Amino acid sequence: MDDREFDDALGALRADRRHGAAELARRALAILQMSAENSPAVDPDAFRAMTAARVRALMAARPSMAAIGNLLAEWTGFLDEAPVHGLEALRAAAAECASNLIAQSREASVQVADHAARLIGTGKTVLTHSRSSTVLLTCDRLKDADLRMIITESQPLNEGHAVAAQLSDWGVPATLITEAQIGLAMANADLALVGADTVRADGSVINKAGTSLVAYAARQHGKPFYVCCESFKRAAQDAPPPELEEMEPAELGAPGWPGVTVHNTYFDITPPSLVTAWITEGGVFTEFPLGSPRV
Amino acid sequence: MDDREFDDALGALRADRRHGAAELARRALAILQMSAENSPAVDPDAFRAMTAARVRALMAARPSMAAIGNLLAEWTGFLDEAPVHGLEALRAAAAECASNLIAQSREASVQVADHAARLIGTGKTVLTHSRSSTVLLTCDRLKDADLRMIITESQPLNEGHAVAAQLSDWGVPATLITEAQIGLAMANADLALVGADTVRADGSVINKAGTSLVAYAARQHGKPFYVCCESFKRAAQDAPPPELEEMEPAELGAPGWPGVTVHNTYFDITPPSLVTAWITEGGVFTEFPLGSPRV
Repeated sequence: MDDREFDDALGALRADRRHGAAELARRALAILQMSAENSPAVDPDAFRAMTAARVRALMAARPSMAAIGNLLAEWTGFLDEAPVHGLEALRAAAAECASNLIAQSREASVQVADHAARLIGTGKTVLTHSRSSTVLLTCDRLKDADLRMIITESQPLNEGHAVAAQLSDWGVPATLITEAQIGLAMANADLALVGADTVRADGSVINKAGTSLVAYAARQHGKPFYVCCESFKRAAQDAPPPELEEMEPAELGAPGWPGVTVHNTYFDITPPSLVTAWITEGGVFTEFPLGSPRV
Repeated sequence: MDDREFDDALGALRADRRHGAAELARRALAILQMSAENSPAVDPDAFRAMTAARVRALMAARPSMAAIGNLLAEWTGFLDEAPVHGLEALRAAAAECASNLIAQSREASVQVADHAARLIGTGKTVLTHSRSSTVLLTCDRLKDADLRMIITESQPLNEGHAVAAQLSDWGVPATLITEAQIGLAMANADLALVGADTVRADGSVINKAGTSLVAYAARQHGKPFYVCCESFKRAAQDAPPPELEEMEPAELGAPGWPGVTVHNTYFDITPPSLVTAWITEGGVFTEFPLGSPRV
């Protein structure tokens, strides 16, 4: 994986609007795995220097997603402490560690989905927003349990359409709505379930813009608002204030008007007071900081 | 105005997604004015019968908009009590009454905008949703008073674009956002100001879908949520439960998937508990039912 190949992969990660933090964190690890296996370094020092630079670039690519930084920090920590036995051994150890972290994070998502599915139970109508791979894993577990989904199109790029296609494949009845209909639709839902790109140290949730509206609507209608948040999505206590990624205004497809600024902020922050439960691989937690799981 | 011309006008009113209730109520009156002036009735009884049928059709055209029913009921009441002096006199009286009601309702909107502009004052950032002609009148009054606007595109047909174009013409700085960004953007607004298609007898507000999300977000951020509601938008105490118009699913532009239903409900209901003030031509009211105006 030479510099151009790495830059292409980095650019694709930066431009990805269709996947959530868990999947993109695994993608970043997969890039590091390929980099470890094939980077053009000639000795262990050059390998470590190139790797460190690539980790920094990947960490900076999606500032709203703590998941990427956390998994990459874990990988870097392993590598820093790995006893060096020459370049090839280092390559193999780094690649294997990336592969293990991908598997571990996938297993964490599976466990979150198991907890979420048990919490939700049969015969429920669940409203979700945007496209969370962990929410989809939960739907997979509930697809034969009379699940019904209400899904948002998720403007501007409509990643809700991918959710609709998947639910249709599974035979899960679904209703697709505009974000504008979230307030109305919540009356017909039993609960809201969303993913997270980051969970901050105070329990607030950074996720696709519009998530906070789902939480407001759930509170107004007296419905639970659950967040799927594997522990690798947790930001550190001393993390800097979150940066909410601003994407291309052109994605809205609006004509230009003098004096009118088009905003396309991709993430928003839902306060912990609106979260009914945080679902991690450790269980379902109704208080933050997370103590003992409720179930 | 023969039957085909009337049906065309009725169809256009029914299909209109870009104008709010005040404007469409005036449009309905303008149709009745043309009908009065030019309908193919041959005597007063035929005129009254045709007129009654056309009023019924217009009243049924937009069930979410009490404004239309109210102004047309007023017109019908006048006509029922008008002393008959032959067909031509009846035509003239009916047309003049429609014209007067159009002028009166326009004057009511102007007074609402005056009250709203005084309430808001200078140097404020106002978030609005969809396209309300009364909110635009308010912007017109504040355009030289350091007004800044945050406006939603208002999916699916983006009537927010027309608001952007008008504000740009007036030189009012504006930010255009997706509905999904309402929660985020409310942090940067001083208040929310929206129109209404209907105000129900309990003070709840029927307006373009998404309005309730603006109200939730305003409450969450501790910002006032004001509603422009000329008195002709008030539904009667004994009005039937509101019908929220469902438009063509195709407007969302989503592909079809087996088992996935696309919803395109155009209106939602904001509960009175989230309304900071109802602004009518009589003033600014912070309680419902409306007692003495606050300002």
